[in-house]
Amino acid sequence: MDSIKKVISTELKNFESKFADAMKSDTPLVDSIMKYIVKRKGKQIRPMFVLSAANFCGGITEASYRGAALVELLHTATLVHDDVVDDAYQRRGFFSINALWKNKIAVLVGDYLLAKGLLLSVNNEDHRLLKIVSEAVQQMSEGELLQLEKARKLDIDEAVYFEVIRKKTASLIASCCACGAASAGATEEEIERMRLFGEKIGIAFQLKDDLFDFGFDQIGKPLGIDIKEKKMTLPLIYALQQSNRSEKRRIINIIKN
Amino acid sequence: MDSIKKVISTELKNFESKFADAMKSDTPLVDSIMKYIVKRKGKQIRPMFVLSAANFCGGITEASYRGAALVELLHTATLVHDDVVDDAYQRRGFFSINALWKNKIAVLVGDYLLAKGLLLSVNNEDHRLLKIVSEAVQQMSEGELLQLEKARKLDIDEAVYFEVIRKKTASLIASCCACGAASAGATEEEIERMRLFGEKIGIAFQLKDDLFDFGFDQIGKPLGIDIKEKKMTLPLIYALQQSNRSEKRRIINIIKN
Repeated sequence: MDSIKKVISTELKNFESKFADAMKSDTPLVDSIMKYIVKRKGKQIRPMFVLSAANFCGGITEASYRGAALVELLHTATLVHDDVVDDAYQRRGFFSINALWKNKIAVLVGDYLLAKGLLLSVNNEDHRLLKIVSEAVQQMSEGELLQLEKARKLDIDEAVYFEVIRKKTASLIASCCACGAASAGATEEEIERMRLFGEKIGIAFQLKDDLFDFGFDQIGKPLGIDIKEKKMTLPLIYALQQSNRSEKRRIINIIKN
Repeated sequence: MDSIKKVISTELKNFESKFADAMKSDTPLVDSIMKYIVKRKGKQIRPMFVLSAANFCGGITEASYRGAALVELLHTATLVHDDVVDDAYQRRGFFSINALWKNKIAVLVGDYLLAKGLLLSVNNEDHRLLKIVSEAVQQMSEGELLQLEKARKLDIDEAVYFEVIRKKTASLIASCCACGAASAGATEEEIERMRLFGEKIGIAFQLKDDLFDFGFDQIGKPLGIDIKEKKMTLPLIYALQQSNRSEKRRIINIIKN
């Protein structure tokens, strides 16, 4: 990851200052929350994909920076909302927005971030980027809902699992790559190829993340969260496939309780 | 209201069937929730404003129906999210989405509705409508946040109160009227005039709603909710202005406890 970042390190710095500017607000409360969010930024993986894809497809433009800001605003909005739903009081080692400002304000801040992203695109007539990202938003919520529906029924198979992670996780990385390509003036065919490239990376990322839940690697993440939430991931699906009846019953009992 | 509805009753029926079609989904869980939402629809005030404005500005077009669907999708999304934040288990006399499907699913459904609205506009290149509505979304969240900030401090004056209700409530009605005008091919000047018209109606609506909280009219709404939530509304601001020091202290004590 660091070697990818190195190639566009100047551009990532540019992005950060543009992003901080875009987050300013005249309402004091909003402004202080935005500053809090900007300071405690994450790994910037999504902007990095946008800018790398643009760089690869002909060069980073002003539209590339706006595309990166759009996906980052959207991603941040979903994280703020997630923390409300999960009653999570920490995010990236800091207090979450709902922990500091309560649920009501956190939900409104999420909506505000969404609107900010929308306006950034609409005002600059980035219609192609907006279409790419809107499709990802729909797929993300559909994927999460599909997972919640199937998780309850314990009847998920490999095909459904891949549909869930393609929509839930991979669609946003895919849209980052497609946005980058579109912002660099790529053809529709090139944009689609970059989208597929991002999709594969997103799927690989989620496969690894699901493995970590079973302790296949030591990255400091707490284990067993997925099982607690009754999420059927690939290791579990494979385990069930290769078990005899009594083993299956035991696994299902563990998940249910 | 009924006399306004009569003029466009056929068109409102058309809208309802188009809206129900737009809400269909291939994911069974999503589809059943969408059907639940469509069945328990509200008063359709916002689509009515869009269609009436379009009718007034030259005629209802396909874009008018899409504009009406966009504001209704957006409005529904915010209601679904509101019920999560307020832990409300009822909406329009029925169970809320969070009551039936839990918070996690309700938040995702809200996001899904937002994405649906976005895609409907982006796919049909309704860029003008999308810009009008995005501005309203930003103003709505800013207005709510401004109210929450000021409500804590009890120092709200008439000017801030009007800023809050203009952003929080009136901006969406204003955007409905502007959308209707734009969808009928009105000029920018006409669109702006319709926006201002909607803004005035929205402000009047909120003024009345805030009066109801003090029991100035019997409409079956529970009283005193705003005071409980420490919302400083116009009746309270006027009461404080016209009180002597000991009366003021009494009022502030009531609000604080």
